[in-house]
Amino acid sequence: MTDARLARQIAFLLEIDGLKSVLRQSHLIDLSRRENDAEHSWHLAMLAVVLGEYATEEVDQAKVIRMLLIHDLVEVYAGDTFLYDTRGVAEQEERERAAADRLFPQLPDDQAVALRRLWDEFEERRTPDARFARALDRVQPLLLNFYTRGASWRAHRVTKAQVLARRQLIEDGSPALWEYIQVMIDEAVRRGYLLP
Amino acid sequence: MTDARLARQIAFLLEIDGLKSVLRQSHLIDLSRRENDAEHSWHLAMLAVVLGEYATEEVDQAKVIRMLLIHDLVEVYAGDTFLYDTRGVAEQEERERAAADRLFPQLPDDQAVALRRLWDEFEERRTPDARFARALDRVQPLLLNFYTRGASWRAHRVTKAQVLARRQLIEDGSPALWEYIQVMIDEAVRRGYLLP
Repeated sequence: MTDARLARQIAFLLEIDGLKSVLRQSHLIDLSRRENDAEHSWHLAMLAVVLGEYATEEVDQAKVIRMLLIHDLVEVYAGDTFLYDTRGVAEQEERERAAADRLFPQLPDDQAVALRRLWDEFEERRTPDARFARALDRVQPLLLNFYTRGASWRAHRVTKAQVLARRQLIEDGSPALWEYIQVMIDEAVRRGYLLP
Repeated sequence: MTDARLARQIAFLLEIDGLKSVLRQSHLIDLSRRENDAEHSWHLAMLAVVLGEYATEEVDQAKVIRMLLIHDLVEVYAGDTFLYDTRGVAEQEERERAAADRLFPQLPDDQAVALRRLWDEFEERRTPDARFARALDRVQPLLLNFYTRGASWRAHRVTKAQVLARRQLIEDGSPALWEYIQVMIDEAVRRGYLLP
């Protein structure tokens, strides 16, 4: 260990404190305010702890959790992009890649490489771990939306077709969770949380 | 998989959404507001990802991370206890145990037992994993305090002696991090963030 190494690691950990101030479109269940990226990342990691058994293929739970903890780090610079904001989504990839190029090298080289690789794996979703992590990342906002009576769906006039257009990510990572979510979506339409 | 099992797991994941509304005494680095338990848990898990090499003994990183993700779950019912609130700390153990008895059984039995065991291990700090996790849980608020120029220390008129009285938890889990923190504490006194 060198002091310089630890100093870089601490500086990185302070830099990512900014994730607590990046707001998402989801609302907390108690409707008190919108959720931020740090809370979202924690909640996703808890989904991985509790729902691991529903992954399509066997996954490395520890790796899925690490992936979910870091998957939104780049939003410290790139901000959050709302899933149904078509224009934002188009530019998102480039913006996030630039943010990753800026963020991860703040760590010592070995850790910069390891975390960047993990983030790339999540983005590329070519492994079972990444596919399951991506599925959970889609499931969590759907849960928050349903249990806040469609707070963010209604604010953005989201339709069932828009939600279903993104179903593949959930279905690929977890058919069992997709089955559950499908029922929830139909119920959301029936209750008027989501436009038909 | 049964639907009843998944329904219980989802209900648990919605219940712990409440952690996002449990405020701690620490402030965010940008001083915009106080930190909540969910963000704190995420930040701690990131400390475990980045600072694992400084543990006293070799630790199971995946387990340390899971421990940190769940260590504050009971505060959904028990609330946060400020470290330097002597009266609160005395009643804390009983209050948190009661909260654990109420919270974990909401999960399916196998998971209730596994998470309760993990939480007990963190509390009892008899294993290297728990000792390292506990050390990180002490290091993170010290970092936030120092880099907010003692925002919460100054608000509560905390002294260096009070901080040092809790040094053992850090020293046991990570002598290297304790060495770093010690320098930081002296600097905090010199700068007037912390009472001498």
